Amino acid sequence: MALDFSSDTSAPAHPAVLTALAEANHGMASSYGNDPLSAALHRQLAALFETDDLFVWPCASGTAANALALSVLCSPTGAILCHDEAHIERDERGAPEFFTGGGKLRLLPGPAGQIDEAALRDALAAIQPDFVHETPAEVLSLTQLTECGTAYAPARLAHYAALAREAGLAVHLDGARFANALVSQAVSPAEMSWKAGVDVLTLGLTKTGAMGCELILLFGDMAGRAARLRARAKRGGHMPPKMRFLAAQALALLQDGLWLELAERANRSARLVSDLLCAQPGVELTYPVDGNEVFVRLPEPLLARLHAAGALFYPWPGGSHRLVCHWATGADSIEALSVLLRDQA
Amino acid sequence: MALDFSSDTSAPAHPAVLTALAEANHGMASSYGNDPLSAALHRQLAALFETDDLFVWPCASGTAANALALSVLCSPTGAILCHDEAHIERDERGAPEFFTGGGKLRLLPGPAGQIDEAALRDALAAIQPDFVHETPAEVLSLTQLTECGTAYAPARLAHYAALAREAGLAVHLDGARFANALVSQAVSPAEMSWKAGVDVLTLGLTKTGAMGCELILLFGDMAGRAARLRARAKRGGHMPPKMRFLAAQALALLQDGLWLELAERANRSARLVSDLLCAQPGVELTYPVDGNEVFVRLPEPLLARLHAAGALFYPWPGGSHRLVCHWATGADSIEALSVLLRDQA
Amino acid sequence: MALDFSSDTSAPAHPAVLTALAEANHGMASSYGNDPLSAALHRQLAALFETDDLFVWPCASGTAANALALSVLCSPTGAILCHDEAHIERDERGAPEFFTGGGKLRLLPGPAGQIDEAALRDALAAIQPDFVHETPAEVLSLTQLTECGTAYAPARLAHYAALAREAGLAVHLDGARFANALVSQAVSPAEMSWKAGVDVLTLGLTKTGAMGCELILLFGDMAGRAARLRARAKRGGHMPPKMRFLAAQALALLQDGLWLELAERANRSARLVSDLLCAQPGVELTYPVDGNEVFVRLPEPLLARLHAAGALFYPWPGGSHRLVCHWATGADSIEALSVLLRDQA
Amino acid sequence: MALDFSSDTSAPAHPAVLTALAEANHGMASSYGNDPLSAALHRQLAALFETDDLFVWPCASGTAANALALSVLCSPTGAILCHDEAHIERDERGAPEFFTGGGKLRLLPGPAGQIDEAALRDALAAIQPDFVHETPAEVLSLTQLTECGTAYAPARLAHYAALAREAGLAVHLDGARFANALVSQAVSPAEMSWKAGVDVLTLGLTKTGAMGCELILLFGDMAGRAARLRARAKRGGHMPPKMRFLAAQALALLQDGLWLELAERANRSARLVSDLLCAQPGVELTYPVDGNEVFVRLPEPLLARLHAAGALFYPWPGGSHRLVCHWATGADSIEALSVLLRDQA
Repeated sequence: MALDFSSDTSAPAHPAVLTALAEANHGMASSYGNDPLSAALHRQLAALFETDDLFVWPCASGTAANALALSVLCSPTGAILCHDEAHIERDERGAPEFFTGGGKLRLLPGPAGQIDEAALRDALAAIQPDFVHETPAEVLSLTQLTECGTAYAPARLAHYAALAREAGLAVHLDGARFANALVSQAVSPAEMSWKAGVDVLTLGLTKTGAMGCELILLFGDMAGRAARLRARAKRGGHMPPKMRFLAAQALALLQDGLWLELAERANRSARLVSDLLCAQPGVELTYPVDGNEVFVRLPEPLLARLHAAGALFYPWPGGSHRLVCHWATGADSIEALSVLLRDQA
Repeated sequence: MALDFSSDTSAPAHPAVLTALAEANHGMASSYGNDPLSAALHRQLAALFETDDLFVWPCASGTAANALALSVLCSPTGAILCHDEAHIERDERGAPEFFTGGGKLRLLPGPAGQIDEAALRDALAAIQPDFVHETPAEVLSLTQLTECGTAYAPARLAHYAALAREAGLAVHLDGARFANALVSQAVSPAEMSWKAGVDVLTLGLTKTGAMGCELILLFGDMAGRAARLRARAKRGGHMPPKMRFLAAQALALLQDGLWLELAERANRSARLVSDLLCAQPGVELTYPVDGNEVFVRLPEPLLARLHAAGALFYPWPGGSHRLVCHWATGADSIEALSVLLRDQA
Repeated sequence: MALDFSSDTSAPAHPAVLTALAEANHGMASSYGNDPLSAALHRQLAALFETDDLFVWPCASGTAANALALSVLCSPTGAILCHDEAHIERDERGAPEFFTGGGKLRLLPGPAGQIDEAALRDALAAIQPDFVHETPAEVLSLTQLTECGTAYAPARLAHYAALAREAGLAVHLDGARFANALVSQAVSPAEMSWKAGVDVLTLGLTKTGAMGCELILLFGDMAGRAARLRARAKRGGHMPPKMRFLAAQALALLQDGLWLELAERANRSARLVSDLLCAQPGVELTYPVDGNEVFVRLPEPLLARLHAAGALFYPWPGGSHRLVCHWATGADSIEALSVLLRDQA
Repeated sequence: MALDFSSDTSAPAHPAVLTALAEANHGMASSYGNDPLSAALHRQLAALFETDDLFVWPCASGTAANALALSVLCSPTGAILCHDEAHIERDERGAPEFFTGGGKLRLLPGPAGQIDEAALRDALAAIQPDFVHETPAEVLSLTQLTECGTAYAPARLAHYAALAREAGLAVHLDGARFANALVSQAVSPAEMSWKAGVDVLTLGLTKTGAMGCELILLFGDMAGRAARLRARAKRGGHMPPKMRFLAAQALALLQDGLWLELAERANRSARLVSDLLCAQPGVELTYPVDGNEVFVRLPEPLLARLHAAGALFYPWPGGSHRLVCHWATGADSIEALSVLLRDQA
């Protein structure tokens, strides 16, 4: 897989995850989340996020985690503000609408996958909860890393959350690549979530190195909605019987900071890829590389050369391409790319 | 876990499953079901079910598998006939209503978890698709093993399916314990599904020995609804990125008949448990033991003795108790029970 | 229409309703319920129901009124207890499931359309809100008149409501024939609603004599859910622009007790029909005649004779027939029936 | 109401409608649409639209008519293309999402309430039905008159419909002010609907002069979805018992072209209002006046003067104002406006 930059969802799980699964696979364990590993996961997260006011629910997919999270925040007659390229709008086949029972997404523009502040302010100012014809915004959903691979500066994230909360909205953070953002922005999990005003976080671990594990975290008052979330998870088919295996994956990654180490490794690879590409004439980044994704415009001959060499990566709307690194992106991949580009030059 | 008869969902996964996961965990693999293992699973099932007219979709939970299966068979203004103790009615928190968009379950009575034929005929005869006030039945959902641990005789299953199809209904089979029924009834997978008139089967493997893997199988014409099922799975959060790990689990169990061997082992343990208990004065079975579950009335002193010895099993509505065996129920468990009962006598 | 006993929904509107519509049809009026007649209707109902803690919303159909009422009482993961012949179960094509977003109906048996107390107590006792697999009952829905044309004795209604409230449930009353029950039971509107523990009443006026007008009344604390109800009404298409015409119908009927007078007239006609029929050999009532509906078993020759004479009425499940009277059932109809039966004798 | 230009939904019903209701109010009539007037309405529309391949369903509100129409065209996993100011997006509180079971609206820009052709072509070209992550467009919904009071030129409407149909989409036309567009564009009902490629039309009559009556018309092949529409109408609470009164309203307006005469009257009044206003210095139209609505920028002093005189009309997003005329806008209103403006000048 030397030149495979297709996606972090195509990567294998980290060996520690497999080891943890094997260790979890001994003896009987209560099903549906009443097992010791699920309890340990809760403790682990409470420590990591520096708070006891939280409720955690693991899911096997990010779409499920986002949609369930939103369904405890947004009523069927409410709306969710999000970026117009947000994953919940573009890539989840109407899951938020399905789980909220018909809620709407209201799309906001902004460069590099980040909502424009003026657009956000306008949208918040336009809310008229008593005007029954319109669907009032009830939630602001932010994404960190954004769909463009960029990170909101922590202060900006907190500022947006504060604006939303002042307007009476709840704040959701889609953290499918939360770990990549954490290491890139050098802040703590708490600082990038509840301390910044986030009510509910969906913390992705699959792209970081799990087999399939995403966590929904309800913070503060929202932890009081745990029963509602569990009921909705159950009827959504997201309460599998042997939940110890979801907990085991998360524990393996969170322990001793492995998730951050893996994210740092992925980010570093992305910077190397970016540097190699940008050294070529005619190459320009579409967005800053704040995490493990490189969005780039490639001159046609270079593109042809990469394809001829079997390099894998996806074209992106607007004429650019996306190259993704992950924990398993090896030195060999970087080296192979380097060789290829050097030969070309 | 010597005297743990609580549930087959509390059992660990079979070691072959863990081995398969580890083997699947090499290199990159296309996500969302476009990987070689998912393709291999399709071939494996085509061979096992003796047909190419099928579409398979793996899910992490049985509730998801049932609800998604029903959502491609029943419209939002239609109804599903099922037993009044069916899992889809009792234990899935409204998942069928959620995924169908508001379809109704119409409950039919019958002893030992099996629908009474007269009740079924009445319900079919009562359908008036043009009477707009009433919700017409569009699907018959049967369960094999039933919620009472009994198996429909294969001929009866086929007869019910035929009645339903004559009335224009589709036929769904909830096979959470399909393997247990297969070995107990000594018929082939094809004979207990599409050859018996089943349109859609949810084939459970989690209780058989997987970590978490249930398969939805669309047979014959219904395979034409594959795109609809995939779209609904995606928006339900049931298309996790790294689907190779779901396929790997299923392949490990289906290969060389391991799933049937494990089911046979569980059934045999259940018969031993049943025999040991029934040899005690005052003990009587509530239902025949057709699979891996024993439903039994226990005299108070015996019950107390079992509890005192730390035996784990659940009370059941109506005053009986349920003891469940599984692939990992060991000779030690049976022996421990035997000793306990002998001492008592 | 001399022998037309088909339905009270086939009757014309009372002339006072038409007059009121004509009077309302002058000049401009704010739309969507912000008009003077809508305000007057609120005042009228506050006086009639002896409370200011209420919110009223008119609807054009009873199915809409029931489903909207239930949607502010029952969550998508909750259940509604009702009689197994209730209109919301049998005749509304899944509207409650649709408007609640997937809530379930849990059916209770009982003779003459009235829930059996033991069955109700069992259902209430079985609620386990923390057992996530099952769908806990959140609402008790009673019907007055029942689908069998009988009336719950006021004390029984209040007793059932009290049992439900003790168990934490909200209480809904489907009053499609509320006026008929009021005059039959000789109690006040308040006594048969909020004073009896009813949280939300759907008060039908269409069968009483309106063109098309049903009222949802939220009492007491539930009046605080007015905004939620309005939002759901709007997105359900139940906020027509010219709402003055709904209010005008209701005002015309409620004024000076016209609705009760019309209901009394219908009830009296039904008693006459019942007396005439029961005087015939072999005729027996299936249910007591507590309102404007007569359910009766008719000997075959008598049935043939009625049909031959062009009499209109519907067969009912179980071999009986239903004859319905209404405000416009004239002395001529009763006389014609009398003559027909006399000739036969 | 001399200077009331607030809304055509605040106008009374035309006297012919009241007369028709009174005439319909004789004797018994089968309920739920099986009455002679409903049959007559079908015949009337078949003649008016020059086709027998149609199915008609009357509704009491435009939101209901639009949402029900869309629910038979768009699956729960599909999307509807519409203008970003469309009524279905802005003013229906999520009704399309509710009735489709979670379908999405995809918003397209364009001046004067009309979709930009390039944006439409881009959206159609972007559809990838097999890319399961994205929600593919299944319907194009156009509005005639648009929300800006403009009319699509008939050829443009037909062109857009043709583009949509080529891409496999169904075409819906929201005709809340269809009559106003017909007289303004001087084409026949058939030419502005099915002959132009429209599959389903919601034809509004309430703003034209009804008390409350909107018609859903399924054309051609779509008429085959009549049973589906009826079932969805029933469960949506949009099948009121005494449907003869909906049919009567529609018949009264459609007979002898009364609806077109009333629309012409409203349009003419709007042109007069527009002419009077535009003769004032500093006044400019925001959009062309193609129907009964005038969107206009008013200098502050003029605005103050109008308000001081008690004139009623709404401010509009972007700083303009909307003045609406209707069938009952009298010569006195125009005269009063004329006097007011003359005095000012």
